[in-house]
Amino acid sequence: MRNRVIILAMIFGSCTSKPVDNEKSKSEVIQTEKDFAQMAREKGIAAAFYAFADDSAVIKRGPQIIKGKEAIRDFYAHQKQSGELQWSPDFADASGVLGYTYGKFIYAEKDSTGKVNEANGYFHTVWKKQKDGSWKFVWD
Amino acid sequence: MRNRVIILAMIFGSCTSKPVDNEKSKSEVIQTEKDFAQMAREKGIAAAFYAFADDSAVIKRGPQIIKGKEAIRDFYAHQKQSGELQWSPDFADASGVLGYTYGKFIYAEKDSTGKVNEANGYFHTVWKKQKDGSWKFVWD
Repeated sequence: MRNRVIILAMIFGSCTSKPVDNEKSKSEVIQTEKDFAQMAREKGIAAAFYAFADDSAVIKRGPQIIKGKEAIRDFYAHQKQSGELQWSPDFADASGVLGYTYGKFIYAEKDSTGKVNEANGYFHTVWKKQKDGSWKFVWD
Repeated sequence: MRNRVIILAMIFGSCTSKPVDNEKSKSEVIQTEKDFAQMAREKGIAAAFYAFADDSAVIKRGPQIIKGKEAIRDFYAHQKQSGELQWSPDFADASGVLGYTYGKFIYAEKDSTGKVNEANGYFHTVWKKQKDGSWKFVWD
């Protein structure tokens, strides 16, 4: 009888539904946003946006949206962005395979006289966990 | 022995981890976005944004962000928006307690001569499921 109780306790213990680990996902999303920003500084905005885009990612730029990783690559191929974009998340939340972040960005670009002009604002990213465990953005 | 197998099968059957029902959540998020748009048409933009905001909701308007349901109410109290805003989701995804949507909006306003001016673009909303099962926006 005692053995049976132990076996039942082991079964219950092992098969309770696994809670979605939101705190772990939040940390992963924050780290991914930082890695994304670091790649943008080191390898350029176009390369970083391509590397971190989900296949079906959408970016909104002004009034238009650009849908899909390849379309995003094409969009950046026609952009002249010689400046440096820096950003870091002030907030992150995640649940299941979705997460989102927001925070401030600064874009600094030298003009023809060598003067640095800065623009700043807020970014916002929606992240989706991939089958390999990495996070890619689905909305930016 | 047979009874014990049946009992074990019942235990295993009842305690497998419940999958997060993304399709049901997606439908709920789409319906909530439509209810949100309907309330905006019927009761005004300010009332709808207050009713559908999570307590910690953030809205981005141009370069600024407004944080928190009460701050959003204050923001709309100072806005003069006499026109009609219509929107409908073209896309939705959800996982766990988070979801997001995007789609087109049209804002139509009569000028002083009675001529209707229209502006259009894309909206994007992040939704969070509340403890009561309803969805409120956390980012707009």
